[in-house]
Amino acid sequence: MHRVRYFGAGPGALPLEVIQKAGQDLPDWRNTGASIMETSHRSREYVQLHEASRSMFKHLMGMDENWEVLFLQGGATTQFAMLPMNFLGPYKGADYVLTGAWSNKAFNASRYFGPSRIAADTRENEIYTRIPAMSELDMDADATYCHLTTNNTIYGTQWKKLPETGKVPLVLDMSSDIMSRQLNLDDVGLIYASAQKNLGPAGVCVVAIRKEMLDRANSDLPEILSYRAHAAKSSLLNTPPTFNVYMMKLVLDWIESRGGVKAMERLASAKASLIYDIIDSSNGFYKCPVPESHRSKMNAVFSLPDEQMENELVAKAKADGFTGIRGHRSLGGLRVSMYNAVSLESIIELAAFLKDFAKRNG
Amino acid sequence: MHRVRYFGAGPGALPLEVIQKAGQDLPDWRNTGASIMETSHRSREYVQLHEASRSMFKHLMGMDENWEVLFLQGGATTQFAMLPMNFLGPYKGADYVLTGAWSNKAFNASRYFGPSRIAADTRENEIYTRIPAMSELDMDADATYCHLTTNNTIYGTQWKKLPETGKVPLVLDMSSDIMSRQLNLDDVGLIYASAQKNLGPAGVCVVAIRKEMLDRANSDLPEILSYRAHAAKSSLLNTPPTFNVYMMKLVLDWIESRGGVKAMERLASAKASLIYDIIDSSNGFYKCPVPESHRSKMNAVFSLPDEQMENELVAKAKADGFTGIRGHRSLGGLRVSMYNAVSLESIIELAAFLKDFAKRNG
Repeated sequence: MHRVRYFGAGPGALPLEVIQKAGQDLPDWRNTGASIMETSHRSREYVQLHEASRSMFKHLMGMDENWEVLFLQGGATTQFAMLPMNFLGPYKGADYVLTGAWSNKAFNASRYFGPSRIAADTRENEIYTRIPAMSELDMDADATYCHLTTNNTIYGTQWKKLPETGKVPLVLDMSSDIMSRQLNLDDVGLIYASAQKNLGPAGVCVVAIRKEMLDRANSDLPEILSYRAHAAKSSLLNTPPTFNVYMMKLVLDWIESRGGVKAMERLASAKASLIYDIIDSSNGFYKCPVPESHRSKMNAVFSLPDEQMENELVAKAKADGFTGIRGHRSLGGLRVSMYNAVSLESIIELAAFLKDFAKRNG
Repeated sequence: MHRVRYFGAGPGALPLEVIQKAGQDLPDWRNTGASIMETSHRSREYVQLHEASRSMFKHLMGMDENWEVLFLQGGATTQFAMLPMNFLGPYKGADYVLTGAWSNKAFNASRYFGPSRIAADTRENEIYTRIPAMSELDMDADATYCHLTTNNTIYGTQWKKLPETGKVPLVLDMSSDIMSRQLNLDDVGLIYASAQKNLGPAGVCVVAIRKEMLDRANSDLPEILSYRAHAAKSSLLNTPPTFNVYMMKLVLDWIESRGGVKAMERLASAKASLIYDIIDSSNGFYKCPVPESHRSKMNAVFSLPDEQMENELVAKAKADGFTGIRGHRSLGGLRVSMYNAVSLESIIELAAFLKDFAKRNG
């Protein structure tokens, strides 16, 4: 079996055990004589899987009975619109902290539904290389929520500590670092995350809402766009993407078997240190634009002396079995994504490769 | 390998060849060294698959260059809202023909966005057993579109011939009979269909729009809810459900290899005849509430003398390897779904089983 070491930013790598288990289950899931894809979402077997997935998600996140978990479709981009549609209104605005492309998209979508404000924007010279300091945040004490993107895949930055927002609930887009870090949920009202980085294949997006926040959601919406309507039907309002939920459950079980989010956090720190150490000790051959305390443990972004050298590195890496390391098309350079399913072993091998490449070409 | 004969209404059966091919491809898709789930949607390999799927869909449907094909998420239920959001307004209404639960849901969602009208409603004694005659349709010549559900999975009815709507474009929810029948597209402006009956697993919904209709769509919408925005990005506005699109492509290829929609239509007629013949020749043991010329070739709905007998039949069927034949929870009775992937052989075996059961218990 030919398998590469894949460091793509999303859809990301999946644990090999999960791929293998899915293969075994394909023609005959749980002795039903049919695949999970050919199983009714109203069947006992699927409903059980669905509920077990919701429970496992809450367990791993440390969420108690005050949280409602929904499995929706359309990715985080759909949540950019659905979130303000459910909570804003002509006189109900929200604060947005802009730290990259995704938070900008979320902010832009919100403006269709209410008077949103920018609480901070760290764009400098057309790009983002840092997270704002608490003192830079201009927050509205009456905001319906305060939105931020916890990890910025394109720019390689990450919030290390969540800002204190008083009684304004935090809304977090955690698409690219969910379950890779332990989180104090005290000030958090809603978390959303598309699956395709840390939770499974593309096609399902998790929305976790604190029930007291859900109770304040608008109700005069078409059912499919209403958080309340989805919650009232235990996230089975319409046919869910059953296979994608099944795959997510395999990934959640895998995280649990490895020691849960605490273990994933330790692993993420170890992996990120290995890559950033190579960058910082390369005598300027590799350059990371992000100051140390703002660096993402999920996506390390860096450049080489010139584009030709970058192309050479990518080609040599591919020949050695390392793929998915080109930077985002808007930014160029290189990017190494180190999501949960990327093994420490893969990172050790890639780090050795990068060190060797710098030595030969630096 | 244990495989049952599955007649569920959706998610429905998939061709065994497709399941097997997916299993082979799982750890290493197209020699990339990764699964399709671990492949970037911006990669050459995925973009090629995406475009080939859009082309194959159009080819099989007989759609020319005047049509745009989108692969969206959220199922047909999301289209119930997205369609009117894109085309209606305070003074722009649409006509809806109500023939069952799904057309009612579509109509209800449309009322949030403009003054929709009911052009006909065939509900009688709380249920639907027929399609309206052309003479019953009270259509508005100025309607933005006229919406109908071509096949009603719950009630087992199907439009045999589309109504003539003059210059008002028809919008068809074909979720449960797409690619099982040849269609004259002359009056059709938009077709949508969630995949999980005739096209693949749940998690992707196809929207095909005539370009001149697309040009009339509202443009002041959040990108993710705008048909125009999706079309402008070749349906790669955000991360698509890559595995689900891949599975759909396998199913489309399978339809093509079997002779296309024309062959599927012949097969659907043959399968439906076998089941309805058993019902009609059972001396009233099996009762189908739908008049012959309104009967669906996708879902045969019928009842037995009493509920206990129905339970006995379901249990005996399961023991013999036939599953998914219980009626919709809102209606009771039995339902045999005969989507494209349900083989003639399966239907022959089920027909023999039903005949035998009637003989023993009638």
